[in-house]
Amino acid sequence: MATATTTLGSAQLRAQLHAFVWSSQVQGVVAATIIVNAISLGFQTAELDQAWARAFALVDTVCLAVFVVEIGLKLLADRAAFFRTGWNVFDLLVVAVGLVPGAGSFTVLRALRALRVLRLISVVPTLRRVVDGLGRAIPGVLSVAAILGVIFYVGAVISTTLFGPDFPELFGDLHSSLFTLFQMMTFDDWGEISRVVSEIHPLAPAFFIIFVFVSALTVLNLMVAVIVEAMQGFAAPEERAVARRDIDDLRTEVRMLTEAVERLTARSLPSNAADEPHEDRLAPTPKHD
Amino acid sequence: MATATTTLGSAQLRAQLHAFVWSSQVQGVVAATIIVNAISLGFQTAELDQAWARAFALVDTVCLAVFVVEIGLKLLADRAAFFRTGWNVFDLLVVAVGLVPGAGSFTVLRALRALRVLRLISVVPTLRRVVDGLGRAIPGVLSVAAILGVIFYVGAVISTTLFGPDFPELFGDLHSSLFTLFQMMTFDDWGEISRVVSEIHPLAPAFFIIFVFVSALTVLNLMVAVIVEAMQGFAAPEERAVARRDIDDLRTEVRMLTEAVERLTARSLPSNAADEPHEDRLAPTPKHD
Amino acid sequence: MATATTTLGSAQLRAQLHAFVWSSQVQGVVAATIIVNAISLGFQTAELDQAWARAFALVDTVCLAVFVVEIGLKLLADRAAFFRTGWNVFDLLVVAVGLVPGAGSFTVLRALRALRVLRLISVVPTLRRVVDGLGRAIPGVLSVAAILGVIFYVGAVISTTLFGPDFPELFGDLHSSLFTLFQMMTFDDWGEISRVVSEIHPLAPAFFIIFVFVSALTVLNLMVAVIVEAMQGFAAPEERAVARRDIDDLRTEVRMLTEAVERLTARSLPSNAADEPHEDRLAPTPKHD
Amino acid sequence: MATATTTLGSAQLRAQLHAFVWSSQVQGVVAATIIVNAISLGFQTAELDQAWARAFALVDTVCLAVFVVEIGLKLLADRAAFFRTGWNVFDLLVVAVGLVPGAGSFTVLRALRALRVLRLISVVPTLRRVVDGLGRAIPGVLSVAAILGVIFYVGAVISTTLFGPDFPELFGDLHSSLFTLFQMMTFDDWGEISRVVSEIHPLAPAFFIIFVFVSALTVLNLMVAVIVEAMQGFAAPEERAVARRDIDDLRTEVRMLTEAVERLTARSLPSNAADEPHEDRLAPTPKHD
Repeated sequence: MATATTTLGSAQLRAQLHAFVWSSQVQGVVAATIIVNAISLGFQTAELDQAWARAFALVDTVCLAVFVVEIGLKLLADRAAFFRTGWNVFDLLVVAVGLVPGAGSFTVLRALRALRVLRLISVVPTLRRVVDGLGRAIPGVLSVAAILGVIFYVGAVISTTLFGPDFPELFGDLHSSLFTLFQMMTFDDWGEISRVVSEIHPLAPAFFIIFVFVSALTVLNLMVAVIVEAMQGFAAPEERAVARRDIDDLRTEVRMLTEAVERLTARSLPSNAADEPHEDRLAPTPKHD
Repeated sequence: MATATTTLGSAQLRAQLHAFVWSSQVQGVVAATIIVNAISLGFQTAELDQAWARAFALVDTVCLAVFVVEIGLKLLADRAAFFRTGWNVFDLLVVAVGLVPGAGSFTVLRALRALRVLRLISVVPTLRRVVDGLGRAIPGVLSVAAILGVIFYVGAVISTTLFGPDFPELFGDLHSSLFTLFQMMTFDDWGEISRVVSEIHPLAPAFFIIFVFVSALTVLNLMVAVIVEAMQGFAAPEERAVARRDIDDLRTEVRMLTEAVERLTARSLPSNAADEPHEDRLAPTPKHD
Repeated sequence: MATATTTLGSAQLRAQLHAFVWSSQVQGVVAATIIVNAISLGFQTAELDQAWARAFALVDTVCLAVFVVEIGLKLLADRAAFFRTGWNVFDLLVVAVGLVPGAGSFTVLRALRALRVLRLISVVPTLRRVVDGLGRAIPGVLSVAAILGVIFYVGAVISTTLFGPDFPELFGDLHSSLFTLFQMMTFDDWGEISRVVSEIHPLAPAFFIIFVFVSALTVLNLMVAVIVEAMQGFAAPEERAVARRDIDDLRTEVRMLTEAVERLTARSLPSNAADEPHEDRLAPTPKHD
Repeated sequence: MATATTTLGSAQLRAQLHAFVWSSQVQGVVAATIIVNAISLGFQTAELDQAWARAFALVDTVCLAVFVVEIGLKLLADRAAFFRTGWNVFDLLVVAVGLVPGAGSFTVLRALRALRVLRLISVVPTLRRVVDGLGRAIPGVLSVAAILGVIFYVGAVISTTLFGPDFPELFGDLHSSLFTLFQMMTFDDWGEISRVVSEIHPLAPAFFIIFVFVSALTVLNLMVAVIVEAMQGFAAPEERAVARRDIDDLRTEVRMLTEAVERLTARSLPSNAADEPHEDRLAPTPKHD
């Protein structure tokens, strides 16, 4: 029985903890901490004298402590459920980067602390919703992205085989080729690259033009899919609501008219009313939706 | 009593002044002055001999005088209300640039006189409405812009920390990094920059590709939001107006029919009419909108 | 009377001539001639030995003769009406280029003969309609284009004044500046240009970023306007037609019901019918379109 | 009779074979083979020691064998019908590349083996449908593409004639010019090219700006056409279905009302009913669809 009470108490406690840590006040404090941390990280990119460097390092540590406590409380409150939300996992990872021992001395880990500032997106609901919206567009776009992937892979294998031996820097291996082709798809310096390659492989420009054209067309298709996806949700719902209200008004008027005719029928022919229950047939049709 | 008359007189005077200065004739004169000033400013960018230079300086002064008088009258007429319209404040600022003492000798101030030509947008109602429309799209786009800002800040902190020491010109401090990343997002020379950095940091292209991809996707989202926003207002309003007129006609017809049935009821059963006030129930429903 | 017959005959003749020269057969011959001429012009861009050069020059002359005869006949048939269609004037101008005496010796005039190939657009109705459609989008886009023009002019005056003395090649005069700013708006090499200028004018990148941002936003607005314009005409007209037919059916039904009630009224109360001309009030409302 | 049985048997056999080779299991095996082949082709782009090279060559041969068997079976099952589907012809061609004798020694043929990986698109129905969708957009876009082609041809002839002699690398012949103009249309380095040419031909930038502007506008038109095409199929069909259901309900109600009025008329005036068959006129109008 003692255990049951404890469990119950702990469940209550966890619900209260959840309510506390997700309250707008606590989330506001976290958002403020993120901004302070962002500013401190910004200043740390500059050359600083020792005193300032130590001050900013302190700010950093305090901010990190706030994040650790916040995420620790969330973990305590939600346990396994914590990991069901992608945003929580994201928060955990970007904060964990700062906890790796010796993070200060490795430049890469020091640089990656800045990822914490991305938490601003997960903390501010409006921004979070935008990214969630982008995420929802992914399934509708996945097959076009897969096609783009196949096109790039084929393009990279072909150009590595053909141009790799002569232009090792541009097409030396598969990922150099992928990079160069991606660069050409963004129309960055593709004319120059094509011209350089064409000095040894005269037909290379034909290959590049076909590749750039096909990949750009696929990207256009990707963008159209995203736009269409986005449109679906937005298209002028107020106007349509007005139109529906108009039609609803009309239906009310017709129903009233029907009742008037019924009353007229009932009065002019009171004797026949009983043997023909036509009211049934005039019952308003069920309204859909 | 004299004061009251004066106040009244002054209020009347100001209303008249307001009507005068905002009349299409006066605004037309102002628009013409702006165009004359624009042409004069254009010629002044060329090397001119002293006589021409003095002539154009005179044109400039006259145009400036016209603007000062116009804005002065507007201020007199509208007083505090003048500052409530953003366009007025804009007009005031771009004209004030020309009034700074010694503006002629500072190249920057001399260059900024050209901002006056932007007044053409505030004076021509069609152009003004386009910019107002752009302004209305801002709130719907703000959260996407905020996300873009966060992404850029994080990207700049990371790349300054990682690449700053080796490439001071490109990533030496936070605003150099912001500029370089913005340049890369516009796909300008990003392949070359990435290649140069990759000579020292072999994984840099991965970072740049992720950054360019994520920021370009966010900008695409921004553009989609602007397009959707713009669509909402435009989507075939005439067609919809026709549909509504059709439904309105239909409602009129039904209402007339209702009245006919009512009349029929009233005539066939004059005795019962008094005790059942069914007219109430047939009152036309209030028309929305 | 002889004159009248002649005039009549000539009017008839001109109508027949018009029908002949605009017939699909003749237009097909013209289209074929344009293609032949296009091929011949293409070959003439290469180094040719004298025999071939003379052969192609002959083809050219024959094609030109066909065009001259065709346009001459059109002029004969339509007289002043010929000049009312923009496409006719376009055809006349591009053909006239080839008739300038000594055109063969001036490279520019020889090059401009290629404009004749653009006649393919005016001869093929499908292509012509596309360009007409583009033309119809212009009015809706004009004000955004005007704003873009003002922004460019102001940007050019400012950058010529500020950067002209130090960078004469990029910003030396107004049209150099316009070209450079246009180039930067297309994101071509703008980062490099901005970096070069910033060596003398440290704040130049701020100016360029603002300019690039504002002008790109305006161009985006221009593109949105074009897209919205294009949408208007296309948006699912069949579906809407179905909806209108539905509402029309409904109106027909209500009208029939009204007639039934009228008949009922007339029969049940034949004595009162004369003194209250309620038919008027039940007359169907005029159908809008 | 034996022949008839054979034919019948063979037809049955072929139907079974068709069902077998197009079954999702077999297609799954083919998809897996393509992916294995893709990975093997990827590794072969790297420098490999002899043992690995031989191993991958073996994987290649096995995959090719699987494809040959698969397509052979399809040919056996479908005979002439096989060639009616574009995708089948595509599969046949990209597999056939690997069967050319001595393909291993020619680099180009060895590189083109990678096209086999594109079969992933034809084997996975979701990807196939996306490409089919792109294909369906082509007819609606063909005339804009034709205009773009004419513009490019004219531009190439003009620039070869004018700039070819002075800039043989950029505009030396028709296809160099086409390439350079295409590059300029993608805004890649066009400012630099234009500046270089303007040193000899001062008016060249005007030509290039017009060309870039017109061709970019046409491409924008092309993109708009693709977007509009894509939109048509998607625009919020559920909402419209609700609206139609509303109108249908309304029509049902009006029809019931009409019947009630008819009944009323029939009862109050049973003697007149025979000589005026007004039921005809109240028959419900045929429902369009």
